[in-house]
Amino acid sequence: MEHKFGIAIHGGAGTILRTSLTAEKEKLYKDALQAALLSGYTLLQKDGSALDAVEAAIKSLEDCPLFNAGKGAVFNSEGRHEMDASIMNGKNLTAGAVGLIKNVKNPITLARKIMENTTHVFVCGEGAENYARAFRLEMASDEYFFDKFRFEQWKQSSMAGGTFLDHNLHGTNAPDEKKFGTVGAVAMDKNGNLAAGTSTGGMTNKSPGRLGDSAVIGAGTYANNNTCAISCTGHGELFIRSVVAYDISALMEYKKLSLAEACHEVVMKKLVQIEGEGGLIAIDKYGNIELPFNSEGMYRAMKSSDGREEAAIYK
Amino acid sequence: MEHKFGIAIHGGAGTILRTSLTAEKEKLYKDALQAALLSGYTLLQKDGSALDAVEAAIKSLEDCPLFNAGKGAVFNSEGRHEMDASIMNGKNLTAGAVGLIKNVKNPITLARKIMENTTHVFVCGEGAENYARAFRLEMASDEYFFDKFRFEQWKQSSMAGGTFLDHNLHGTNAPDEKKFGTVGAVAMDKNGNLAAGTSTGGMTNKSPGRLGDSAVIGAGTYANNNTCAISCTGHGELFIRSVVAYDISALMEYKKLSLAEACHEVVMKKLVQIEGEGGLIAIDKYGNIELPFNSEGMYRAMKSSDGREEAAIYK
Repeated sequence: MEHKFGIAIHGGAGTILRTSLTAEKEKLYKDALQAALLSGYTLLQKDGSALDAVEAAIKSLEDCPLFNAGKGAVFNSEGRHEMDASIMNGKNLTAGAVGLIKNVKNPITLARKIMENTTHVFVCGEGAENYARAFRLEMASDEYFFDKFRFEQWKQSSMAGGTFLDHNLHGTNAPDEKKFGTVGAVAMDKNGNLAAGTSTGGMTNKSPGRLGDSAVIGAGTYANNNTCAISCTGHGELFIRSVVAYDISALMEYKKLSLAEACHEVVMKKLVQIEGEGGLIAIDKYGNIELPFNSEGMYRAMKSSDGREEAAIYK
Repeated sequence: MEHKFGIAIHGGAGTILRTSLTAEKEKLYKDALQAALLSGYTLLQKDGSALDAVEAAIKSLEDCPLFNAGKGAVFNSEGRHEMDASIMNGKNLTAGAVGLIKNVKNPITLARKIMENTTHVFVCGEGAENYARAFRLEMASDEYFFDKFRFEQWKQSSMAGGTFLDHNLHGTNAPDEKKFGTVGAVAMDKNGNLAAGTSTGGMTNKSPGRLGDSAVIGAGTYANNNTCAISCTGHGELFIRSVVAYDISALMEYKKLSLAEACHEVVMKKLVQIEGEGGLIAIDKYGNIELPFNSEGMYRAMKSSDGREEAAIYK
């Protein structure tokens, strides 16, 4: 009997209201999610590893300007793109993370190279970019990352002295600014191996040097064959303080909660208590998939070998 | 009845052999540990907060050139000092972390400012240094951080193309290079509040941009009034992958282990299984203190209001 396999992806969470997306734009997003999902699922079908599927799905989302990662990453307060990404292999608990990198076409691929080809786990800034060049990864000019919508968003935010939610057309300069927008994937392959990855451009008009949870193993990304694989999206600061991704795993391992129970506990209770808006995607060692979020919406999709399939944006 | 209070500190772990330290040098280390311990303990005695005690003790260790943090930080492969620090308040689970900063006299103070005076948790590089200037923190020249022993260590390591353990006089350029050296403190104050902090200069001859666990909330530092406060020192990459600091807390909260049992499980079993050399200091909400390590030695000291006191280096 063939082992069950499956994949889930997200394209960020936030105040995504049905009224703020046209039917046409909604279709664009869903098509992009489907394309990313299939790029990973097809690999799994052909006996590919969970790690390969996660990387392929995230690359697809990074290459799509609709999402705040890779091409289409938001502008920071200096009008530059500083990107973060991390990946973890549930089979051997190895991990790679990069932060604050510029001009690397696919940050998730660099995170994987750091994991597999260096003695480091976490490398930031120019040091990480130097690794990208040493590994001959594809680099891209500032123009490549430029997206007109993101640029207008940044100009408005910059003028208002505030920040914008990635998926909020209205923006805000309220003191309780929200920090969303990420892409991510989790997968289980036919061998029962789990993997998780996350990639982001951070928050529009963010201070240079600010890292969210996407670069932090345990907070934004975690995978362990004994429990689950997790990729988060939400208010990064609160996700770091709550060690969200590892917390799901710990609740399953130590408190014997199911994946659904652990997700509910963390996303709907613990995060809500501290106003930690956002969500996550999760797959456990049995192939169960959960896509919980406490925000208005989360771009998400999943497909598993038992026939379950879903692509959705709103609650 | 007055609430129990206490503090524990560490000055790094590693291959510290009795034969490698002269009696004179050993006394220097112990005196420095005692001074740092008392700077924190005295504050606790005078009704100071756990957070103040942790910051004071770590500042004392940062200002001492014997330890790899602040003054006396090791040189990276470019002959510069890149420092990391993090702090967490167990009362409200707020946290601050800085990475890859240069010329900031006390990185732990910057981490605290990030926690208390910005909406961010984690800021790296020049962005973090800009915050230090904005907060008018004391800056210091490269000369201030210069230490002759560290410089000789770097020159030798650089020539050999390898890296050095912070507390190993022999050095290594073996492929399985070890990454030690950190200072840290954990405390409980008279109000039962817990706090933890960690600060480091990283690894001699490290690649620019490399972050270890000291900057990562959940990995190197964690505090939660419901469970414990933890500061780690050891092979940073393995501590990140193992989410060490939060793991102790999770084992206590979810599996109902005692502090001693949780420390044993993580430091003596889980870390040993993956050859994750190092140790940690821990205090729980009852004021119990543990100082476990699986390396040859760990510079450590503790003092609690019930009269227990210790300062030691070797096993």
